[in-house]
Amino acid sequence: MHKIDFREKRNLTMLTDFYELTMANGYFENGLKDKIAYFDMFFREVPDDGGFAIMAGVEQLMDYLKSIKFEDEDIDYLKSKNIFSSGFLEYLKNFSFSCDVWAVPEGTPIFPNEPILIVKGPIIEAQFIETMVLLTINHQSLIATKTNRIVRAAQGRPIMEFGSRRAQGYDGAILGARAAYIGGCSGTACTITDRDFGIPALGTMAHSWVQSFPTELDAFRAYARIYPSNCTILVDTYNVLKSGIPNAIKVFEEEIIPRGFRPAGIRIDSGDITYLSNIARKMLDNAGFKDCKIVASNSLDEYVIRDILIQGAKVDIFGVGERLITSKSEPVFGGVYKLAAVEEDGKIVSKIKVSENVAKITNPSFKKVYRLFRRDTGKAIADVITLADEVIDDTKPYEIFDPVHTWKKQVVTNFHAKPLHEKIFEKGRCIYESPNLKYISEYCRDQIDTLWEEVLRFENPHKYYVDLSRPLWEIKQKLLQEYSY
Amino acid sequence: MHKIDFREKRNLTMLTDFYELTMANGYFENGLKDKIAYFDMFFREVPDDGGFAIMAGVEQLMDYLKSIKFEDEDIDYLKSKNIFSSGFLEYLKNFSFSCDVWAVPEGTPIFPNEPILIVKGPIIEAQFIETMVLLTINHQSLIATKTNRIVRAAQGRPIMEFGSRRAQGYDGAILGARAAYIGGCSGTACTITDRDFGIPALGTMAHSWVQSFPTELDAFRAYARIYPSNCTILVDTYNVLKSGIPNAIKVFEEEIIPRGFRPAGIRIDSGDITYLSNIARKMLDNAGFKDCKIVASNSLDEYVIRDILIQGAKVDIFGVGERLITSKSEPVFGGVYKLAAVEEDGKIVSKIKVSENVAKITNPSFKKVYRLFRRDTGKAIADVITLADEVIDDTKPYEIFDPVHTWKKQVVTNFHAKPLHEKIFEKGRCIYESPNLKYISEYCRDQIDTLWEEVLRFENPHKYYVDLSRPLWEIKQKLLQEYSY
Repeated sequence: MHKIDFREKRNLTMLTDFYELTMANGYFENGLKDKIAYFDMFFREVPDDGGFAIMAGVEQLMDYLKSIKFEDEDIDYLKSKNIFSSGFLEYLKNFSFSCDVWAVPEGTPIFPNEPILIVKGPIIEAQFIETMVLLTINHQSLIATKTNRIVRAAQGRPIMEFGSRRAQGYDGAILGARAAYIGGCSGTACTITDRDFGIPALGTMAHSWVQSFPTELDAFRAYARIYPSNCTILVDTYNVLKSGIPNAIKVFEEEIIPRGFRPAGIRIDSGDITYLSNIARKMLDNAGFKDCKIVASNSLDEYVIRDILIQGAKVDIFGVGERLITSKSEPVFGGVYKLAAVEEDGKIVSKIKVSENVAKITNPSFKKVYRLFRRDTGKAIADVITLADEVIDDTKPYEIFDPVHTWKKQVVTNFHAKPLHEKIFEKGRCIYESPNLKYISEYCRDQIDTLWEEVLRFENPHKYYVDLSRPLWEIKQKLLQEYSY
Repeated sequence: MHKIDFREKRNLTMLTDFYELTMANGYFENGLKDKIAYFDMFFREVPDDGGFAIMAGVEQLMDYLKSIKFEDEDIDYLKSKNIFSSGFLEYLKNFSFSCDVWAVPEGTPIFPNEPILIVKGPIIEAQFIETMVLLTINHQSLIATKTNRIVRAAQGRPIMEFGSRRAQGYDGAILGARAAYIGGCSGTACTITDRDFGIPALGTMAHSWVQSFPTELDAFRAYARIYPSNCTILVDTYNVLKSGIPNAIKVFEEEIIPRGFRPAGIRIDSGDITYLSNIARKMLDNAGFKDCKIVASNSLDEYVIRDILIQGAKVDIFGVGERLITSKSEPVFGGVYKLAAVEEDGKIVSKIKVSENVAKITNPSFKKVYRLFRRDTGKAIADVITLADEVIDDTKPYEIFDPVHTWKKQVVTNFHAKPLHEKIFEKGRCIYESPNLKYISEYCRDQIDTLWEEVLRFENPHKYYVDLSRPLWEIKQKLLQEYSY
């Protein structure tokens, strides 16, 4: 793989909410820049009311954290705002990231209210990175999560990502295609994503190819002669059944077979896919092309794919565009980044954000997350959020309980407790190597296999347990009492 | 303004659907690379069932068209695919864009089915740029269009763009904020967009600032001392009415007034905005701070803003995040790029894409668009798509007619006919200078003022007329007859 990596050419340090800078200047001026703080990233709801989300974007976040640097021009720009102290601007000029960061690895199923990323370090730094942490993880986790829904709906048939032209910006296309691969796509139409991430890019022809020739037959013939070994033909420019497929079959017979190849496929991009694919299948079979694949595209998503498969559509490969690359049904992944604790005289002081909306109350303190798996089936039982120094001893029975309805309890036995985070930065130094994307994609598939079928359901999935350990639960109750008005 | 421009650092030539390359190789190998083709970009439906969209992204498209270049690494990558001819790869190495391009200027209201961008040139080039044309214009037009809805709902109150953390990728945040400004936002939280495009960035504090101090009062005080001249305080970390606003008033009195300033504002980011803002207004007024602004944020969009204003919310400024930056209610702008004609022996041969779905049938031939304005009121009457060489003589009555229900006719008099496109590239050379963003934003506002109120309505807006000239209509009918099966 050629490693040109478009990302290294950009410095995104200034891609930050302006308030990160006003706060940073505020911490600096108040002599608080080195106060140690703990921040959590978490999300509150799974998009599309799904049962789980998929973590993605950690590699790009690492790239960013490694590259934070305020250029002279940035300092000049900030100076022109006339609100930042010269001491602070000098500090920025020499900014050096020194935090510890823990992240749930990419491809891992994640659940609401558990920290998926934890940052510990000087508050001025830990706060500053908020915008890019959220932007990076929110975007890719959204697309990986949505893609996985579509992939599951297709029941083993490959999904190709076709959405670049409708993505929300260039990174939306490029990194969206990356996230789609993590979520289970088999390939992409996005060439640069193949070049930079090694995700197989595929593509054949547009309607304009067909139109630009005097006749459809001429267009198919010209294409087949150049790509005889991998010839997929777009059959819906004029009329699928009366023109497109008969012409494709003719060209397969005249141009592909005599050259010793088999036709690769036909693509249908409009009309009723169930109806057309069934007749197309028969026409191809009758012509002796039972191995010729039928590719369908055109405003597909998990719901359409599920429905047309139930109706018996004869589709072998789905091309999915705008509804995947923008996660059209739910285009926001609502990850937030909240202060969980600060250190006072070397001791951790837990912090909470209360709210009249109870769903918005945070989990305080410096934490970690264990995922409990059954030893016999390998299935995931629950996640337990604990204090960072707690150890779950999985050789003994362990009681989990619902953090709101505390009378709902369960004693877990015969389980394995796996810490969910990897430490990715140690005092500002990156200590984690991102696995390659193929590995991440396979890891994702395997981890989803540890979830019960009930959690995978599209409608009204079972709510996977995310519980608090008793020590953490007690700290939270104590803080809530303090802030009750 | 400092011009660091993050865009120049990236080469996005390879951000293209792979089929653009397979087709390009196909044209090359068939000896068709210099065949002249005409492509149109247009869209079929206004997002959110609105009455119009807003053109945006032309400046970034120009940047791209000026910078197309295949690097040696790109050629190596393509070579590794083993499907491209060596002649073609050599051609790419020396690729030089030579097309003519016409675009509707940014900030212009645009309507379904009219070409908003026209490309004429060698088919291999005109086809190749498809993905970036669509990606660039679709994204920014989507966000400009959505933002304008939100801006109109706020009835003159400023809208701040707050969405970076929930954007779909980095460009989604940066260029989304640019498009939001075109659509009428007053400012952004996105620092890099201010640095690179001169859009005022603003920001104050997060909940974490408040939490990181021992008490809320300490946090407000620390902030006010550093930013006395422009102090906006976030009042909902613990309890808006019992704690946040009383503490804010105390700090305004103790830290802001004695320094000779007035308090800038308070921000409410959760809870019931109507209820809280009314009580907050009274508390601030009673404290003598009638000039202190109330800023509201938290999952706002045009519908919520309209409703809370109808209910009498006392909000002066709205901060709008995820629902603007992703156009959450409709996150796809469905622009398409279709072949309209080719040249054969120097003569234009019109092309059409037919479809069983009549909405997907294209308008053939090399075209232009006139917008007809009433001379007395300045209001826009209709857009007329004509052949490129047609001239609408606005000194004479002109008959427009509905292209489907052709008996619906109207003779227009006392009007001014304005061609809608600017030529931006001439034989591959950029000949257009993009206006500055402030101008574009003002131009947008003025152009929207030329639309009838009925077209601006959120629900069930009046459908603005987009008609075909009689010569164009006749060409289309003739082609449809030819392709009827």
